[in-house]
Amino acid sequence: MKKIYNFSAGPAVLPPSVLKRAQTEMLDWHGSGMSVMEMSHRGKEFLSILAKTEADFRTLLNVPNNYKVLFLQGGAIAENVMIPLNLLNGKRADYAITGSWSQRSAKEAKALGNIDVVTNTEPFTHVPDFSNWTLNKDAAYLHICTNETVNGIEFDGLPDAGNVPIVADMSSHILSRPVDVSKYGVIYAGAQKNIGPAGLCLVVVREDLLDQASPLTPGVFHWKEQAENHSMVNTPPTYGIYMAGLVFEWLLEQGGVVAIEQQNIAKAALLYDYIDSTDFYINQVAIKNRSRMNVPFFLKDESFNDAFTAGAEAAGLLQLKGHRSVGGMRASIYNAMPLEGVQALVDYMQAFENSH
Amino acid sequence: MKKIYNFSAGPAVLPPSVLKRAQTEMLDWHGSGMSVMEMSHRGKEFLSILAKTEADFRTLLNVPNNYKVLFLQGGAIAENVMIPLNLLNGKRADYAITGSWSQRSAKEAKALGNIDVVTNTEPFTHVPDFSNWTLNKDAAYLHICTNETVNGIEFDGLPDAGNVPIVADMSSHILSRPVDVSKYGVIYAGAQKNIGPAGLCLVVVREDLLDQASPLTPGVFHWKEQAENHSMVNTPPTYGIYMAGLVFEWLLEQGGVVAIEQQNIAKAALLYDYIDSTDFYINQVAIKNRSRMNVPFFLKDESFNDAFTAGAEAAGLLQLKGHRSVGGMRASIYNAMPLEGVQALVDYMQAFENSH
Repeated sequence: MKKIYNFSAGPAVLPPSVLKRAQTEMLDWHGSGMSVMEMSHRGKEFLSILAKTEADFRTLLNVPNNYKVLFLQGGAIAENVMIPLNLLNGKRADYAITGSWSQRSAKEAKALGNIDVVTNTEPFTHVPDFSNWTLNKDAAYLHICTNETVNGIEFDGLPDAGNVPIVADMSSHILSRPVDVSKYGVIYAGAQKNIGPAGLCLVVVREDLLDQASPLTPGVFHWKEQAENHSMVNTPPTYGIYMAGLVFEWLLEQGGVVAIEQQNIAKAALLYDYIDSTDFYINQVAIKNRSRMNVPFFLKDESFNDAFTAGAEAAGLLQLKGHRSVGGMRASIYNAMPLEGVQALVDYMQAFENSH
Repeated sequence: MKKIYNFSAGPAVLPPSVLKRAQTEMLDWHGSGMSVMEMSHRGKEFLSILAKTEADFRTLLNVPNNYKVLFLQGGAIAENVMIPLNLLNGKRADYAITGSWSQRSAKEAKALGNIDVVTNTEPFTHVPDFSNWTLNKDAAYLHICTNETVNGIEFDGLPDAGNVPIVADMSSHILSRPVDVSKYGVIYAGAQKNIGPAGLCLVVVREDLLDQASPLTPGVFHWKEQAENHSMVNTPPTYGIYMAGLVFEWLLEQGGVVAIEQQNIAKAALLYDYIDSTDFYINQVAIKNRSRMNVPFFLKDESFNDAFTAGAEAAGLLQLKGHRSVGGMRASIYNAMPLEGVQALVDYMQAFENSH
């Protein structure tokens, strides 16, 4: 098998041991004679998978009992629609625009209700001081994206929103570090970065927020109905949930998010330290907001871009091209990317610099 | 490995050769060094999978060029919301209620716009003569469910709706028989019966119907935007699409839908003929509308129900309990259920009858 390191921003690399387990169980899960894909979502086998997956997720993020965990579809992009439907409740909402994804979330909400932009940092290089945000005390919620996948910007704290619930898109750094869930009203995350395959979206909702959906919200998009039906208003993405469960077990074996955070700090430091050691490569993000998961960088001489990506691919370093909206390069180094992968990237960058 | 036959209504049995291929390719798709789950949806590897999956689906159902094929999320239940959003266009729509699923589709649409029920056959045992339907010439569309999974009712023809486009939920019998796609405006189907794993929904739309969505329709639910973005307004369920592609290849190897239809006719005849040969078991559906895919039946003496399902499970015949809304039993015998599975069920039913 070809040795590669996959720096895709998502869908992204998964732990090899998780894929091997899925391979072993593909035709026969735990002696049931069935693939997980073939199981009725209401059968005892799948219900046991769902229950363990949720329990392990709760353990990993220490989710308080007054929060529901939903396993939905459509990714964070569909959730951008669900959030105003489920929470606006005839009020206005605050949106912080700190990168491409929060910008898109705000745009989606604006089509469905009234929002106020409390900060907008375009072009995106940092999270501004929270004291400068124009927060509204009566907002239905404050929406933030705590890690901007495209721009490589990660929050280094949380604004004090008082009684206004914070709704956070954590798609690209969930489970990469500890989080105090109780500080949030809603956390949501597409699975295809740190959780599992695309097609699954986790939504963690504080129970008291389940009662303010627009009466027009269809059941399939209604968090309360999904919560009451154990995410089975529609047939859930059963195989994606199973894969997420395997990833959660792997994370627990690694020592949970406290241990994985240390690995992530080491990986990110290796790459950023190298970038900062040369002027051949540039990262434009404020140091305190540099994402541990998504590292965008530019070659000082962009005429070398194609040679850089072609050489990288030949060396088995895949998906390093930056997002089409910003250009340059981007290395996504999620939980499942080993330190050796980051070292291989740094070695390649150094060799490329020396020869160009 | 335990030998079982899985009669689940969905998620449902898959061809063993498809699962074996997925198992082989789990860690390394075609020498790429990646699992399909790890591939960027915009990378050349996944784009080639998506293109072949769509091409094979078009071949199987002979989809005309003026139809788009979308790979969406949320299942048929989410699509029940998309249909009025994308098609109502300020007009009224006709809904035929011939079973639990079309009833649910009508309910969902009613919450979003104005609909007329052109026939309602509750309690559901047949599809009424089309000449008795009160069709509206000005309807935005006519919605039907051509195979009712819960009630075991399959259409034996199509109403003449004139210029009104027919929108058909084919979730539970798509690819089980040839279909003249040109007679429909929209065909949609959740994957988890005859296509692949749960979490993927195929939508086939005639191009001229892409221009009538409500301006409030969010991009992720807007068929035209999804069509223009090759189903990538949000990250598509990549692994589900890959599995669907493997199922389509398997179907082509079987001789396509013409050949699989003959197998389905033989399987259904074996089971219905046995049910009709005894008064111990009862199927209440009009003979011309008996579904080839979903065979609900009742024991004449329902006090034996628990013994029947317990004995079946002990014999490796799984998921025979009827839908909770109708009770009794149900055997779903999709494309991937072999004739031997239906024979094993009939043998068990006969033995159970003899001993009770």
